[in-house]
Amino acid sequence: MRITTVGLDADDTLWHNETIFRLTQDRFRELMAEVAEPAVLDARLAAIERRNLSLYGYGVKGFTLSLIETAMELTGGNPPGRTIADILAAGREMLAHPVETLPGVDQALAELSESYRLVLITKGDLLHQEQKLAASGLGDLFAAVEILSEKDASTYVRIFERHGTGAAGAAMCGNSIRSDILPALEAGAFAAHIPYPLTWAHEMAEAPSGNPRFAELASIAELPAWVKNLG
Amino acid sequence: MRITTVGLDADDTLWHNETIFRLTQDRFRELMAEVAEPAVLDARLAAIERRNLSLYGYGVKGFTLSLIETAMELTGGNPPGRTIADILAAGREMLAHPVETLPGVDQALAELSESYRLVLITKGDLLHQEQKLAASGLGDLFAAVEILSEKDASTYVRIFERHGTGAAGAAMCGNSIRSDILPALEAGAFAAHIPYPLTWAHEMAEAPSGNPRFAELASIAELPAWVKNLG
Repeated sequence: MRITTVGLDADDTLWHNETIFRLTQDRFRELMAEVAEPAVLDARLAAIERRNLSLYGYGVKGFTLSLIETAMELTGGNPPGRTIADILAAGREMLAHPVETLPGVDQALAELSESYRLVLITKGDLLHQEQKLAASGLGDLFAAVEILSEKDASTYVRIFERHGTGAAGAAMCGNSIRSDILPALEAGAFAAHIPYPLTWAHEMAEAPSGNPRFAELASIAELPAWVKNLG
Repeated sequence: MRITTVGLDADDTLWHNETIFRLTQDRFRELMAEVAEPAVLDARLAAIERRNLSLYGYGVKGFTLSLIETAMELTGGNPPGRTIADILAAGREMLAHPVETLPGVDQALAELSESYRLVLITKGDLLHQEQKLAASGLGDLFAAVEILSEKDASTYVRIFERHGTGAAGAAMCGNSIRSDILPALEAGAFAAHIPYPLTWAHEMAEAPSGNPRFAELASIAELPAWVKNLG
């Protein structure tokens, strides 16, 4: 079956994201330096983020609330006011952060968009993802944008039916094995993994082995040729 | 042109929402009673919400962050830890609050869904809106769900093209003149306003007068007959 549609993850596939979370986390460590060791702080934050995920979902606003909650817990419920102010400011800066596309993205997408329907498929805060897409200048290359609360196989089935010729005629590309690759393969699509140097603990998963519909690419620059070869 | 599609707003059209925000705001007033008069507090919160809207968008998480920011400002940057803890708890309770459908909703939607494609068209936090729809038990009645960062005329044009026969063959129903009625009429759709007893200041607007595609209904129970009469 001919490939008609290419799905692309956004954060850490098209532009930097985890780097910005890590920088904020570094700042949080400094802010809390007198209260907790970095390792203790990181573990507490990760646990609180995990606990809040089903309520807050993905994105900066939930992360900011989890940072405040972590500061509360580690200071026995009485953080200095300065700490809360700094966390609120850090959250706002993350939301207003300039979007920096990753190397090769602009050219690869321009090339792919000549032959395929491109669909942006991403998690996170609705408004923030829309704003990042607008700021990236890539918006016009996409035939559709799907911002989701979670990515599973049924999501990919539905999206590739809505915007293309079904999962069998689609290829998904992203940096998260857990969210972009495994469920897309399960849906029946092709999937290319392009690792980003950093991966959020929650997104960790093992790459599939021996699946003929899967490829590991070193850079998004390799994506157009790989998709073309699928037929 | 025959009506094929009915768009429905969610918060305060299908289920209570503003009431829950007001209850949280009452609780916030009590929490801050020693710091600020209710009127001062409300004005400060409204100004901070307005300022944050372009960054946070709509929904409970942004509201929670704005409550914390208001507490910070009004305490000179040093709120008691207890205050922050209570605000975080209030935000979580709002997100986990049971969904209570408004009187007549279940029956009206069941009736409409026999003859029309129903599309849920709502703003707010993505995950939270999905969870509320699931909790409402109404999910199966909808052919599509669109959760948006903003509702304007171009949004309605796009949605009614995607899910129906265009705006001219669609009717929109909701409690907000500003978000549900004016832009839907501008898009070329029919629109029925069903007031909710409370309206968030940001959503206030004057009802259109003399537009033959507009109706004011006292209850959603009147919606099926109104849509049927459109032809």
